[in-house]
Amino acid sequence: MTASKTNTGNFFEDFRVGQVFQHATPRTLTVGDIALYNGLYGARFAVQSSEPFAQAIGYPRAPIDDLMVFHVVFGKSVPDISRNAIANLGYADCRFLTPVYAGDTLTAVSEVIGVKENSNRTSGVVYVRTRGHKQSGEIVLEFVRWVMLRKRNAAAAAPEPVVPKLAERVDPAVLAGAVPAIDLNRYAFTLAGEPYRWGDYKPGERLDHAEAMTLEEAEHQIATRLYQNTARVHFNQHEQAQGQFKRRLVYGGIIMSLARALSYNGLANAFHIAAINGGRHVAPAFAGDTIYACSEILEVCEIPLRRDIGAVRVRLVAIKNRSGADFPLQTAAGTYSEGVLLDLDLWLILPR
Amino acid sequence: MTASKTNTGNFFEDFRVGQVFQHATPRTLTVGDIALYNGLYGARFAVQSSEPFAQAIGYPRAPIDDLMVFHVVFGKSVPDISRNAIANLGYADCRFLTPVYAGDTLTAVSEVIGVKENSNRTSGVVYVRTRGHKQSGEIVLEFVRWVMLRKRNAAAAAPEPVVPKLAERVDPAVLAGAVPAIDLNRYAFTLAGEPYRWGDYKPGERLDHAEAMTLEEAEHQIATRLYQNTARVHFNQHEQAQGQFKRRLVYGGIIMSLARALSYNGLANAFHIAAINGGRHVAPAFAGDTIYACSEILEVCEIPLRRDIGAVRVRLVAIKNRSGADFPLQTAAGTYSEGVLLDLDLWLILPR
Amino acid sequence: MTASKTNTGNFFEDFRVGQVFQHATPRTLTVGDIALYNGLYGARFAVQSSEPFAQAIGYPRAPIDDLMVFHVVFGKSVPDISRNAIANLGYADCRFLTPVYAGDTLTAVSEVIGVKENSNRTSGVVYVRTRGHKQSGEIVLEFVRWVMLRKRNAAAAAPEPVVPKLAERVDPAVLAGAVPAIDLNRYAFTLAGEPYRWGDYKPGERLDHAEAMTLEEAEHQIATRLYQNTARVHFNQHEQAQGQFKRRLVYGGIIMSLARALSYNGLANAFHIAAINGGRHVAPAFAGDTIYACSEILEVCEIPLRRDIGAVRVRLVAIKNRSGADFPLQTAAGTYSEGVLLDLDLWLILPR
Repeated sequence: MTASKTNTGNFFEDFRVGQVFQHATPRTLTVGDIALYNGLYGARFAVQSSEPFAQAIGYPRAPIDDLMVFHVVFGKSVPDISRNAIANLGYADCRFLTPVYAGDTLTAVSEVIGVKENSNRTSGVVYVRTRGHKQSGEIVLEFVRWVMLRKRNAAAAAPEPVVPKLAERVDPAVLAGAVPAIDLNRYAFTLAGEPYRWGDYKPGERLDHAEAMTLEEAEHQIATRLYQNTARVHFNQHEQAQGQFKRRLVYGGIIMSLARALSYNGLANAFHIAAINGGRHVAPAFAGDTIYACSEILEVCEIPLRRDIGAVRVRLVAIKNRSGADFPLQTAAGTYSEGVLLDLDLWLILPR
Repeated sequence: MTASKTNTGNFFEDFRVGQVFQHATPRTLTVGDIALYNGLYGARFAVQSSEPFAQAIGYPRAPIDDLMVFHVVFGKSVPDISRNAIANLGYADCRFLTPVYAGDTLTAVSEVIGVKENSNRTSGVVYVRTRGHKQSGEIVLEFVRWVMLRKRNAAAAAPEPVVPKLAERVDPAVLAGAVPAIDLNRYAFTLAGEPYRWGDYKPGERLDHAEAMTLEEAEHQIATRLYQNTARVHFNQHEQAQGQFKRRLVYGGIIMSLARALSYNGLANAFHIAAINGGRHVAPAFAGDTIYACSEILEVCEIPLRRDIGAVRVRLVAIKNRSGADFPLQTAAGTYSEGVLLDLDLWLILPR
Repeated sequence: MTASKTNTGNFFEDFRVGQVFQHATPRTLTVGDIALYNGLYGARFAVQSSEPFAQAIGYPRAPIDDLMVFHVVFGKSVPDISRNAIANLGYADCRFLTPVYAGDTLTAVSEVIGVKENSNRTSGVVYVRTRGHKQSGEIVLEFVRWVMLRKRNAAAAAPEPVVPKLAERVDPAVLAGAVPAIDLNRYAFTLAGEPYRWGDYKPGERLDHAEAMTLEEAEHQIATRLYQNTARVHFNQHEQAQGQFKRRLVYGGIIMSLARALSYNGLANAFHIAAINGGRHVAPAFAGDTIYACSEILEVCEIPLRRDIGAVRVRLVAIKNRSGADFPLQTAAGTYSEGVLLDLDLWLILPR
């Protein structure tokens, strides 16, 4: 049989710095996708949940959850970038630049910005900058991620290593691009669920988000397919049964969305993720795991020229099968505690 | 860690008669939510399933399933009222007052109308009247429910007991509020699936609804999140494993919706639930249980000034892991038979 | 208890050639149904996924996935035709005649075109031609299927056997009914995901579709309910536990949709199923099975008067728990190999 028309994905040695991929399958997002997203994570942020709430404060319509936009753009990049990934190592410099609404169509483009072979010469790390666009061409989202990829052929020559320099955090001055002028007089804190504004959060403050969610295979598979993410480790139990974990791996983005949805309890007015400064999937999650979340406030910043909103930098951590009440992030040895799944560094936007 | 911004819910002693809660997170319902509802329960009532069918008989558009509206309004009340509930004891005086359509946004308000400490002094019963509103302010739904709640502190003083008097059934005169004038000449009984009209049902008649549905964890979790119901017993296996049942409890509203969907077979023309006279969750349901349903006709009433429609009062019973063919509701001793999950007393509207 | 109002379905001896069934419950399809379909199968064909892509090439809007239309029409016929089916034996002469869009409402009518009692006299085969209509009356889909049905009463007289003559394949001249004039200059192959056009496929060519999906109970149940298909074997574990397989059977249409979604990898530009020449469910599938797919090109045909598109006849095969890489369709003895689930003969439309 010829398999010539079947895409089996790229390997480490297929990537070159400067290479650009226009990813396949534009995707029109609809209220159907939003409903399924809500059914899968249980988000309760008022701006995304209610058209009148969003319109009262200044949005033309209720925007789509920021992480849903992230997952859809990420998903498009999978067949070209990470179909053969060993691990999705990290994210940085992720900025949400314009709101996305039901009816918008997303496409994605990635550029290779770094490559570095591992010392074992059987794999390497590829850095890409991925941009999501609307049908109008507007950039809705931009992020860097780096993945570890197998080589097809261990004997392939190593490219010149290029490791991009990435800022530790996104500059607060650029955080408000996706936020219209907010009418604070019409922001109903009771309906939003909590009274806390930007100024109520202090660096060092910690929040246990209290609720938790147990993951099911059907749930993570439905979510991951909704994003048209085809990474086989999430779907093929027949193959996974032969592998290291014996089970399907849950797409890391699901842990991001669950942690974000859980963070409503304590951060109900953090209505927009403006940036992901950095993110790391510390350990894999599987069906049957129960996900908890907790947060630590890292910084509280003004945004230039904006008196309506402010930015709060939050470390959002997801943990499995143990409560976040004691904020179990670091061990005494400085490594991650047992059960930590995800360590996200976010810029959140709150009303002032 | 300070947990001061995290909502851990109210306990029995936090409630006072007359207290009013404006619940959080307004929710715009869409065709996406409807699709997910259909995928989760398999409802087949023509008025809700088909825009042209609904329009032919007099609705401006296809209305949203009544129980979906109930669950969304109920879900909003959970964080304030029943986050720490031991049990959801019952419903009464539930009236569906105006149709809800895709695009409508629901909010909810509850008033405490009764409190009564249990004799063990560690818990008590709270009665609330909950109202769901549209964006226009119109009341779409109103119901009373009572829940058993833990006390935070057993030594807290007992309030004066107040137990509201609740009518045994909703007055038939008020049942037609959510039903436009129905054009019977354009009601296509063949498309609706059965020839039976209001006058074809007789008190004492029993119906075995024949089909059944086995519940899965992913299904009840997705449904319950869709309603933004955050009660932890439905989602947190890590915590439930330590409890009485060792398993996640299925939200009782799911049994209501499944029984309603199953009741299509025999009650296909009962296109609207006008009222829930009373309801009781007799036993818990878990993933893996197979749900059957059967009905008994209690009353057949005219509705004043309406020649197009009539009301049929039905006892709708859900049973698990045994067929409803022998209507196994009461034991010889007068208690519920093994397997009975739900005993609902409904006013249904049918064409005349 | 009287069960007189409950529909328990038809048995073999209830069918007569010429009998017509107007099936119940018209169904308005929405973007919500489309989202759920995408979440359940992960389809990535650009025409169905993107409004701007569909509009650029000549559709007024993105059409609904052809197999979703098939499943909805099929589902309507189940309560009347196959509620008591022993097996769904095959399909033929299935033609997709006009595109269906979000907002369209589907109804279905079936005519009995054949009956043949089995030699054991306890069952028989019924052939029906089923048509799906839009609200406008337009036929969207037409197909023949045949099912094996139990007799209610083995002593019932055998009808005169009538076995319809069915063409081996749909005539290529009628394949373009649901395809507008396609503007090839605006067909973006990069966005669609592959460069291969109609002329790039050759008879005898084989394609391993590489990806695979493991099925979960919640997934197949949600999908089957979305189609309002009530066949009890898919939903009732309590009853199935007593039967031959001890488990719920997955609706065969789910395997069709999964195989179609997987076939994107290698057939990304086959944007429309114009016909199902024949189809056979070779073996049942269950939750936990992992579904792979492979294809063989059977014919490559021009369509009269169309220079924009051409037809490719494909044998699309789904296999469980083994890869399709070696195209494991036939055994040496000429029967199906272990693991083959579905053998579909399709006419697909591709840009020229």
